[in-house]
Amino acid sequence: MTRQELFQNIIQKKSFLCVGLDPDIKKIPKFLLDFEDPIFEFNKRIIDATKDFCVSYKPNTAFYEALGEKGWESLRKTLEYIPKNIFTIADAKRGDIGNTSQLYAKAFFENLNADSLTIAPYMGEDSVKPFMYPGKFVIVLGLTSNPGAADFEMLYLQDGTQLFEKVLQKTCEWGTADNLMFVVGATRPQMLEKVRAIAPEHFLLIPGVGAQGGSLADVFKYGATSQAGLLINASRSIIYASTGNDFAEKAGEEAMKLQGEMEVLLRSKKLI
Amino acid sequence: MTRQELFQNIIQKKSFLCVGLDPDIKKIPKFLLDFEDPIFEFNKRIIDATKDFCVSYKPNTAFYEALGEKGWESLRKTLEYIPKNIFTIADAKRGDIGNTSQLYAKAFFENLNADSLTIAPYMGEDSVKPFMYPGKFVIVLGLTSNPGAADFEMLYLQDGTQLFEKVLQKTCEWGTADNLMFVVGATRPQMLEKVRAIAPEHFLLIPGVGAQGGSLADVFKYGATSQAGLLINASRSIIYASTGNDFAEKAGEEAMKLQGEMEVLLRSKKLI
Repeated sequence: MTRQELFQNIIQKKSFLCVGLDPDIKKIPKFLLDFEDPIFEFNKRIIDATKDFCVSYKPNTAFYEALGEKGWESLRKTLEYIPKNIFTIADAKRGDIGNTSQLYAKAFFENLNADSLTIAPYMGEDSVKPFMYPGKFVIVLGLTSNPGAADFEMLYLQDGTQLFEKVLQKTCEWGTADNLMFVVGATRPQMLEKVRAIAPEHFLLIPGVGAQGGSLADVFKYGATSQAGLLINASRSIIYASTGNDFAEKAGEEAMKLQGEMEVLLRSKKLI
Repeated sequence: MTRQELFQNIIQKKSFLCVGLDPDIKKIPKFLLDFEDPIFEFNKRIIDATKDFCVSYKPNTAFYEALGEKGWESLRKTLEYIPKNIFTIADAKRGDIGNTSQLYAKAFFENLNADSLTIAPYMGEDSVKPFMYPGKFVIVLGLTSNPGAADFEMLYLQDGTQLFEKVLQKTCEWGTADNLMFVVGATRPQMLEKVRAIAPEHFLLIPGVGAQGGSLADVFKYGATSQAGLLINASRSIIYASTGNDFAEKAGEEAMKLQGEMEVLLRSKKLI
């Protein structure tokens, strides 16, 4: 999917919502355990209930790897099930070099056919560039929403920039807004000004709205571009909106609520 | 496996060799493709041929993930096949936070029963600490052997330290030499002095000897401790020593050669 197509989907759905598909076998409703692949059954129902309100799905690979080869199969089936006009993010936070990166790229972009993959930048250029694939996006960790972001990401370098800014600057030399996005946490919306000074056009994947305390309005204020430029991720607040048999219905309601808030913001900026 | 047990194995085998199990389906001998699980068959023969000369095996997960659920099965079977007195490293370079880290830890430490897991430190404390598991080791990327290490890892911070030094310093506050190791590339052996100033006792996993140009003697000179403190990884130079039907035999010979060089070094420091 191209950046332009992603923007068109945002316009059409009046939403820049990304739903995190992080199904924990211990948390999903008990009746699903009778199915051959409970994780896939859970995802299928969540997707059916939310697909009209979101433009992206983001499975975090940890939830699938924890179940071994069976989990990997659930991940593959989930990615196959997602409608083709919805942008898929394999949230794998991978990072390796040379041949090895190419194998990860093959695993996620070819075999699983994900539109994008999250990448940890610590190892530098030769751990990021091999993931720049025709028609795919690399989503590099920039400034994350967790407390540990203060340990390294926010450190000041000798030239006065913070490490996450240097990561953005360097990475922007290796790719363009057409094959590169960044993860920036919603818990620090003012930091989005710093991000936009370096990456004015790139889409940003923003976790941490809601559960982790970030405000959607603030994120939009500091981060939105003329193409929206934002994918706001919500996981638990949607997929576990109810832990009962009505989980899919409630997930749909939560997604619709967020879509409604996003529609107001998009109108306020005259994007729709 | 405890640090003391690892050291005992080093003494007993007169080796601190780690063999990288990175089997590429395109590179393994053709006759193996007739087996139900060619990757496992390849690894099995490599393990049989090298197990007397090494103290550790390190499968890089990318090589298995590239084959989907089937690859994950090969990884699981490979880890099950490795003798229990050999230290296993899941080279996954994971990194995520909170609940998600716990799922990765479960995937690798419980389900696959690996002794250790490599971790990318970018996201800070809450992306490293959840991997500190009883009886297991976290192996944090410190200074890697690739050219891209210059992009971020080697940058100078405002307090005059380099980023990789800060990573070592901080991480040493979160764990001890009994549950924490570091990846330090052999291509920069002098840097090992800086590493040992911060982490005098920790085991270091050292890639980049041979193929990437680092010298074993230099690494030992600058990096060895009173418990050896080093695991030197060799992958391609061993597993692809021959691409013919004699690959296992040649792999054994290469591993024995490296073991011989390591025995000389261990004797020179009176560790054996």
